Amino acid sequence: MERRVRVFAPASISNLGPGFDVLGLAIERPGDVVEAEWRDEPGVAIAAVTGDGGLLPTDPERNVAGVAAASVLAHLAGSGAAAEKVGGARPPQGVCLRVHKQMPLASGLGSSAASSVAGALAVNELFGRPLAKEALLPHALAGERVACGATHADNAAPSLLGGIKAIRGYAPIDLIDLPVPPALRLAVVHPHVEVQTAAARRLLRGRGFPIEQAVANLGNMAGFVSALYRGDLELLGRSIEDHLVEPLRIPLIPGFAAVKEAARGAGALGCSISGSGPSVFAVAGDDETAARVAAAMQHAFADAAGLESEAYVGPVNLEGAKRVD
Amino acid sequence: MERRVRVFAPASISNLGPGFDVLGLAIERPGDVVEAEWRDEPGVAIAAVTGDGGLLPTDPERNVAGVAAASVLAHLAGSGAAAEKVGGARPPQGVCLRVHKQMPLASGLGSSAASSVAGALAVNELFGRPLAKEALLPHALAGERVACGATHADNAAPSLLGGIKAIRGYAPIDLIDLPVPPALRLAVVHPHVEVQTAAARRLLRGRGFPIEQAVANLGNMAGFVSALYRGDLELLGRSIEDHLVEPLRIPLIPGFAAVKEAARGAGALGCSISGSGPSVFAVAGDDETAARVAAAMQHAFADAAGLESEAYVGPVNLEGAKRVD
Repeated sequence: MERRVRVFAPASISNLGPGFDVLGLAIERPGDVVEAEWRDEPGVAIAAVTGDGGLLPTDPERNVAGVAAASVLAHLAGSGAAAEKVGGARPPQGVCLRVHKQMPLASGLGSSAASSVAGALAVNELFGRPLAKEALLPHALAGERVACGATHADNAAPSLLGGIKAIRGYAPIDLIDLPVPPALRLAVVHPHVEVQTAAARRLLRGRGFPIEQAVANLGNMAGFVSALYRGDLELLGRSIEDHLVEPLRIPLIPGFAAVKEAARGAGALGCSISGSGPSVFAVAGDDETAARVAAAMQHAFADAAGLESEAYVGPVNLEGAKRVD
Repeated sequence: MERRVRVFAPASISNLGPGFDVLGLAIERPGDVVEAEWRDEPGVAIAAVTGDGGLLPTDPERNVAGVAAASVLAHLAGSGAAAEKVGGARPPQGVCLRVHKQMPLASGLGSSAASSVAGALAVNELFGRPLAKEALLPHALAGERVACGATHADNAAPSLLGGIKAIRGYAPIDLIDLPVPPALRLAVVHPHVEVQTAAARRLLRGRGFPIEQAVANLGNMAGFVSALYRGDLELLGRSIEDHLVEPLRIPLIPGFAAVKEAARGAGALGCSISGSGPSVFAVAGDDETAARVAAAMQHAFADAAGLESEAYVGPVNLEGAKRVD
């Protein structure tokens, strides 16, 4: 048994197109790294959090990675699974984590999900992988609940498992692994302005949506899922339309309209908000177009809103969270 | 050139599962028959409407089949397509229709769509099929608009073209032909109680739906469409959940809760309202189960609400509307 592991969990795009709280995908980078090592005292300790500019709690009961790790640890202790895997010997009582944020906070790229997933995966790896990867999802969600209040799995599921995931329902979690067209490329741009997920969600609370808006998203959801099975990127692009949430959140993202127009002008097949923003993503059918689209989006953020930004361009991450030591 | 044709357009299940106004499928029976023949006077006349108990207008400008037929006729006259097809000879000025209702009105089975589709198809067939079948959809919708006010294509598209259809959007109509799992069977029960589509739609007007209800339907839509591509009837069944409209319309259908429970008890994979009701449909994976489910639903309507009913059991209609002379 190793006494120390290091895992990576990728960023993700949730609220994908028409799929608010339902559809998400993992990207190759950025992502978070969590190291875990054996510890004789019970429970989870956090030795360090780096890369967060001092913004994240190091209290393991308030840190999402700590909560997810503790959830896995408690499950393993309860089931005796960890003991079995370490050859019947009494497993260590606890875990010490080091959380390395390697992606922006409150970016709309699933930062808290990546940390939660990494925390859960690290503990499972440390104890010899007693649980299947899928079984870690509820533990990652326990972590996310600390950050977001609500538990929606459209960040954590793809960050953990890779690919494009839909969540049909939650009682129990009914996860659908959608096909990923090989040519699909993403251009993701994170402008330097902060949108708090909780504030973005407050816009929706207590609000009633006309049936027509739900119908428009349902039609686009049918198109989006069909497009994935068919590998029809044109259909995928035109199905990236959100009539429910995007219209309300546009004011939170300065320059969004210009950015979307720039993306389309540069050849994007579709463009929308990533998560609750401020990151914006676009889809394209090849690397060259995706790079051109990302550059156009960055220019538009600068020109229309004076915002600096980072861009990430690449395919869907098919692997999800993984060991990296 | 023939001077007389006879066409059949099948009934359909719209508002399919989570897909209010978006998803529909055609069934083998019942359906409507429309006969059309050449007429020297301009425009559309209706010589007879049968099977409607005297309830439908025979005025061609108020009868859905008449309106759809007139729409095709005007299009052909404008384009000269009909003249071309009849060998350059001047085509007849008009069309005389006989509309044979062979399905119940206000049943939730797409009665007005079937008549509209049959009216449109009959004229196109009469003039030698100048238009592709798909091109008849806007004309059928012009007919339906007379009956329903709103124009949603989830009855007319499958009635015309067969299969399971999703409508991604309307500007322009973006129709998605979904795969039909070969084992899929439907049990459809029409209880003898009337639900007016317009009244059922009024329940939705001006109402605001919480985002959570839309999210629940979006997740089920992702599941439903995935299930069709995968041929996964279990997933299909559990995706037949409507959190938006079904809860509001249950009171319009006496005995609905008992009928749904009976369907599940008899082996149905899923069960919901067809169109705006009162018909109810269930899905099953083989003929025997579907027949058992239909019988159980009929018994439940009788026991729980004292309602007589008809049942239709069979596969999805893959062919859609067609010549039957």
